[in-house]
Amino acid sequence: MQTSKKIAVVGSGLVGSLLAIYLKKSGHTVHVYDRSPDIRKIQFSGRSINLAMSNRGWKALDGVGVGDAVREIAIPMDKRAIHLVDSLKFQNYGQEGESIYSISRGTLNRKMIDLAESAGAEFFFEQKIWDVTLASATLHIGETERGEWEDRKYDMVFGADGAFSRIRHRMQRQSMFNYSQEFLNIGYKELHIPANADGSHKLDKNSFHIWPRGEYMLIALSNLDGSFTCTLFMPFEGENSFASLTDRKEVEAFFEKNFSDSVDVIPNLAEDFFRNPTSTLVTMKCFPWTYTDKIALIGDACHAIVPFYGQGMNAGFEDITVLYEMMLVYGDDWEKVFSEYEKSRKPNADAIAELSYRNFLEMSTKTADDKFLLQKKIEKWFSDKHPDKWVPLYSRVTFSDRPYVEALAIGDFQNAIMEEVLRMENIENIWNFPEVENKILELLQSQ
Amino acid sequence: MQTSKKIAVVGSGLVGSLLAIYLKKSGHTVHVYDRSPDIRKIQFSGRSINLAMSNRGWKALDGVGVGDAVREIAIPMDKRAIHLVDSLKFQNYGQEGESIYSISRGTLNRKMIDLAESAGAEFFFEQKIWDVTLASATLHIGETERGEWEDRKYDMVFGADGAFSRIRHRMQRQSMFNYSQEFLNIGYKELHIPANADGSHKLDKNSFHIWPRGEYMLIALSNLDGSFTCTLFMPFEGENSFASLTDRKEVEAFFEKNFSDSVDVIPNLAEDFFRNPTSTLVTMKCFPWTYTDKIALIGDACHAIVPFYGQGMNAGFEDITVLYEMMLVYGDDWEKVFSEYEKSRKPNADAIAELSYRNFLEMSTKTADDKFLLQKKIEKWFSDKHPDKWVPLYSRVTFSDRPYVEALAIGDFQNAIMEEVLRMENIENIWNFPEVENKILELLQSQ
Repeated sequence: MQTSKKIAVVGSGLVGSLLAIYLKKSGHTVHVYDRSPDIRKIQFSGRSINLAMSNRGWKALDGVGVGDAVREIAIPMDKRAIHLVDSLKFQNYGQEGESIYSISRGTLNRKMIDLAESAGAEFFFEQKIWDVTLASATLHIGETERGEWEDRKYDMVFGADGAFSRIRHRMQRQSMFNYSQEFLNIGYKELHIPANADGSHKLDKNSFHIWPRGEYMLIALSNLDGSFTCTLFMPFEGENSFASLTDRKEVEAFFEKNFSDSVDVIPNLAEDFFRNPTSTLVTMKCFPWTYTDKIALIGDACHAIVPFYGQGMNAGFEDITVLYEMMLVYGDDWEKVFSEYEKSRKPNADAIAELSYRNFLEMSTKTADDKFLLQKKIEKWFSDKHPDKWVPLYSRVTFSDRPYVEALAIGDFQNAIMEEVLRMENIENIWNFPEVENKILELLQSQ
Repeated sequence: MQTSKKIAVVGSGLVGSLLAIYLKKSGHTVHVYDRSPDIRKIQFSGRSINLAMSNRGWKALDGVGVGDAVREIAIPMDKRAIHLVDSLKFQNYGQEGESIYSISRGTLNRKMIDLAESAGAEFFFEQKIWDVTLASATLHIGETERGEWEDRKYDMVFGADGAFSRIRHRMQRQSMFNYSQEFLNIGYKELHIPANADGSHKLDKNSFHIWPRGEYMLIALSNLDGSFTCTLFMPFEGENSFASLTDRKEVEAFFEKNFSDSVDVIPNLAEDFFRNPTSTLVTMKCFPWTYTDKIALIGDACHAIVPFYGQGMNAGFEDITVLYEMMLVYGDDWEKVFSEYEKSRKPNADAIAELSYRNFLEMSTKTADDKFLLQKKIEKWFSDKHPDKWVPLYSRVTFSDRPYVEALAIGDFQNAIMEEVLRMENIENIWNFPEVENKILELLQSQ
């Protein structure tokens, strides 16, 4: 057991709240700060993408005994429902029984804060942290950035304050701090499919609904109340873009043309479209994540990724799993806990950032590429025949807790194999012939 | 002629001062701010790397009529003097008459401020700019970051305040601002070779002296007063590192062993070593560089690069050349001036950043690589035979004003050719045979 410390967690989001539970159950005093009001007392913002909880997320929740409480608000999705322009097709995510879980961000966040409070963590809302003194783990809090500040000293501070973290902001101003933020030219907007009058879902609730259209796409994930949270991803500028849709008529015509089967189920389309903000998508990387035994960044605060692999929250929760493992191994040597934590997590955070960005590229540029579709078809065919020899990348990321770096490396190896296979003569016609199967088996031996 | 504007330039370094001259001569009111004291009144810092002025730098200076004033304080270097462990060899930089020019940073900066003042720019030293309001081009100045600030409103503000720019710092906090900073694990330290008693140089003054040793190296560039400014580049940590040299004896033994012919000419080696700071090396990229017609970043403030191509100042000066071209074309449409400036310069800044980083990799990892040395030998041999067909990359970057992107692209093409050449059977022995020459000629046709 560790010596009890006085710990501040900055950020009451999903990662901050779960971290607070872990720290509290490890015997520490835990204060959680947030600049926003208590999310349990306000309407959520209308700029959310529903969460897809998968293996890594569940592992972190179960590790501290709160998985079942969260399962009550989760809806399993065992397949994609792919809404093509003129047809609908389904695609299972994994093997029988494997699902990802749709959870509304607001609902989960409220639940997590409740759970953390029950565990004994104290929450302080509408407290704006403007700066931190790294060497003494002292928070500087005040109404405005230029006004009076009050100091709060802790034994250590966790920055769980998201992609635009103030804690990281201070660390960035040190020498030798590596940092990058890169925005996509794609934004997103929340839309809404309400429940039927009887409370049932208008679309299959156990599917992740996706309307892939190359550069832009629509997705919909189910909520407990029968509604769906939809997200439209689209370039900011250009032919089919947020900038090009300037009035109700244009929005309605665009949806009628491109997402025709969605029109009937999104009654307040134009209203939602112009009321809800258009949000940005950023990949943020940095290093180091910690400062001596005083400060540690966690979750989006040190590795914000684009949402196209559904792994943002899962990766943040896995940070906590790894941090806790280090706490168990290194006990009161917090400097070692922190350095082993960042050493273990940094390459994995980079790997899932890369995988998430590649998924964006795949969706926006490759969905219409015949070679790419043929590759996916061959992979699926081979994997079904040899499930032990070819675990699809998606399954490694989503249904296992093997490191992301391993998933990325094996994915690259699989891609290299498929490149060779696609170079086989007449591959379009012989793709499911024994010679292709043998070729793959042989190339797998070269691993 | 443009309508006269009231312009603030933040930063009185090389780029800020030269920009002030251009702006003043274009009819504007120019105020230059610097947080430091007037460099003309203080001892320079002991953390400098001497400058190597080349074509792009001279072009910018000559473009506003101050080249000759700077030539008076410049020493031509037409060759590298390569101090191997047991021998010294010379290598010309370019064709007959082509040189780069050694200039002390402090001397040049003082001269540039004098020239800018003569042109009518006003300088305000020890004025700390903490923030800027982008939309109104208002500077916020005060003694301390948290204390009272005074506002100074301008028509536009240029951020020429270097790699850690406060102006950029504000721009970074906008949405959709792409940014990265990446530190090398190599630092540098200034050392000093004094003049002989008669004022003459202890080493050949018309050479760029370099002691390449793979992971670490020493360089020396001549000053007007007979001295040389030396720079030691070395990893922060590890076997041969700044961390490993902790006392006089270790430093002296290290130099005796690795830079033996330098020991006699650096009398205060250990003293300098422990007095002078160890500085960091960073590559910084960002975009956008401008904000409407109000704010523009320039030089290191928007593209800090590592010094291994000797192009940092030259690239910053070339920013000014391009900005001025846009001023001539677009006149009072400053929004257009700014947008065309950043559009033109950004890819070139990325290209020279890449080239500079590659030169670091070459020096630290490839100098002992036989394949690499063979490649250089073949390139040299072919280029001497066909100077019109093979301009070495270094010459394109240093002795031309063709865009850096072009140099990078042609350099990559040359590398691809050399990769094929190096795959030729028995290339070690036939490297200067006609078949190699013909192979290169044939591959060049494929361009």
